[in-house]
Amino acid sequence: MASLIECVPNFSEGRRPEVVEEIVRTVRSIDGVTLLDYSRDETHNRSVVTFAGAAEPVVRAASAAVGRALELIDMEQHSGAHPRIGAVDVIPFVPLGTTRIEECIDLARRFGEQIATRFELPVYLYGAAALRPERQRLAAVRKGQYEGLKEQLGVDPSRDPDFGPKRLHPRGGAVAVGARKPLIAFNVNLATDDLVIAQRIAETIRESSGGLPAVQAMGVLLENPGEPRYAQVSMNLVDWERTGITRVVNEIRHLARASGTDIDHCELIGLAPAGALLDVAADALGLRGFTPDQALELRLARDR
Amino acid sequence: MASLIECVPNFSEGRRPEVVEEIVRTVRSIDGVTLLDYSRDETHNRSVVTFAGAAEPVVRAASAAVGRALELIDMEQHSGAHPRIGAVDVIPFVPLGTTRIEECIDLARRFGEQIATRFELPVYLYGAAALRPERQRLAAVRKGQYEGLKEQLGVDPSRDPDFGPKRLHPRGGAVAVGARKPLIAFNVNLATDDLVIAQRIAETIRESSGGLPAVQAMGVLLENPGEPRYAQVSMNLVDWERTGITRVVNEIRHLARASGTDIDHCELIGLAPAGALLDVAADALGLRGFTPDQALELRLARDR
Repeated sequence: MASLIECVPNFSEGRRPEVVEEIVRTVRSIDGVTLLDYSRDETHNRSVVTFAGAAEPVVRAASAAVGRALELIDMEQHSGAHPRIGAVDVIPFVPLGTTRIEECIDLARRFGEQIATRFELPVYLYGAAALRPERQRLAAVRKGQYEGLKEQLGVDPSRDPDFGPKRLHPRGGAVAVGARKPLIAFNVNLATDDLVIAQRIAETIRESSGGLPAVQAMGVLLENPGEPRYAQVSMNLVDWERTGITRVVNEIRHLARASGTDIDHCELIGLAPAGALLDVAADALGLRGFTPDQALELRLARDR
Repeated sequence: MASLIECVPNFSEGRRPEVVEEIVRTVRSIDGVTLLDYSRDETHNRSVVTFAGAAEPVVRAASAAVGRALELIDMEQHSGAHPRIGAVDVIPFVPLGTTRIEECIDLARRFGEQIATRFELPVYLYGAAALRPERQRLAAVRKGQYEGLKEQLGVDPSRDPDFGPKRLHPRGGAVAVGARKPLIAFNVNLATDDLVIAQRIAETIRESSGGLPAVQAMGVLLENPGEPRYAQVSMNLVDWERTGITRVVNEIRHLARASGTDIDHCELIGLAPAGALLDVAADALGLRGFTPDQALELRLARDR
């Protein structure tokens, strides 16, 4: 029974494709790891690599990628729109399949300690893996960014890393290592082009305005040539086991109808955990006694 | 990209647990194969073993299981309620994940030829792997059973095997090897205990009475102590890509309401391909542009 874990490291390099390709090659070279995606952003000068596998190969790939990034990226030369504290800015571990978040918390802590020693790199634990409650939010760890942390580290004890030296790595800065649940990017397109309705619905349902827990939402206007214009509620569901797709869609349908419109259709952006979609199926059918590992492929992923 | 294939051999032994355990042990001993289930029936004097993996280990496990069964089971001593032609009666290969049925057809034919030679065993190809159209139905291959086949083989050319000798294996008889799509056992419990309504709905929707393609259905009365009694439409969906769960449930809901009742809840028995359940989710949400490999775990199963 091998746990399935996803790792999504963010690197502070988005302008030199050859550097990003080299890091991706390093990940790919590890047996037992599947590369799921990578993308590079010039404005943010940042790249995101997504891979998955059992705990051991995933840790090996993440560690190898950190080593390569520390050789290839120099934070003294780095600028970009996105906040960051190091050459490898953040490394979240995410449970897939029937893996529990607790395994990723353990893994993040062990991995953090390991790379702190191996690379003499200050490591901050964040998210569900945080040891200090104030570090659960990544924004708190990143406060002041690389430049601010350089001045405060070793001076302000509240900025002490959880593992590693009380000084930045000379080129690589510091890194945030954590655990979080998988994120679902999900959009609901309304049968209207009235942006105000989408914005009002987004504000009603998002957690930050007192709406549904673990839901981030904004209203946008979709304008694709040759297609009708849709007012869209664009969302991140950051904990689908707390607030699932069905609940969000039912709530939006209710609010849309109260505004004299309805849902036209939905879109799932990129990948989502099978469990979140199987829950939608179970809700739609009123399935009694259903468990996600009744899906053959999930049972296999669990047992092999 | 390794194809994921399920194999569900049926063995003509259900009364000697030690024999069944030994066959299961043989399957389990093959690297790369996951045992999903096995069950033994005394009345039928028959056992079913379900396992899965990539093509190569699945074939290796199936071949090893045939070898062991031919050593341990003697058809000359066998009787039971279920029709059968051999010690290993039938071996279907089933596509899982993103595997196509065509791969299972190829596999069944290669495997059939291989065991015919290795064990001097007459092999009949059935189901989607049949080479003669009249052998698509397993019942046609099994006609007259072991005893009848023993007399006709080598005499009646219409009973010639597709591979192997024109005489039964001295202890093991013959075997049917085939390919079929995965089967979904799915029940809809009505908000009534009127069995006649469930029977009428079952008759309306099943293919054999001119209803929905690839649907087998019957009406039964569910009586569990301490629970309400439900009239149940009990089904096998034998090709969910032709007739999926949503279509069946919508049809039953429509018919139930026309009879003054409704669906109370549904039950999925055992395992189902994730794709069949993801389709239900996509239908329920009106998801546009959705593909099953947007489910993270299916993408991983495909890519690794």
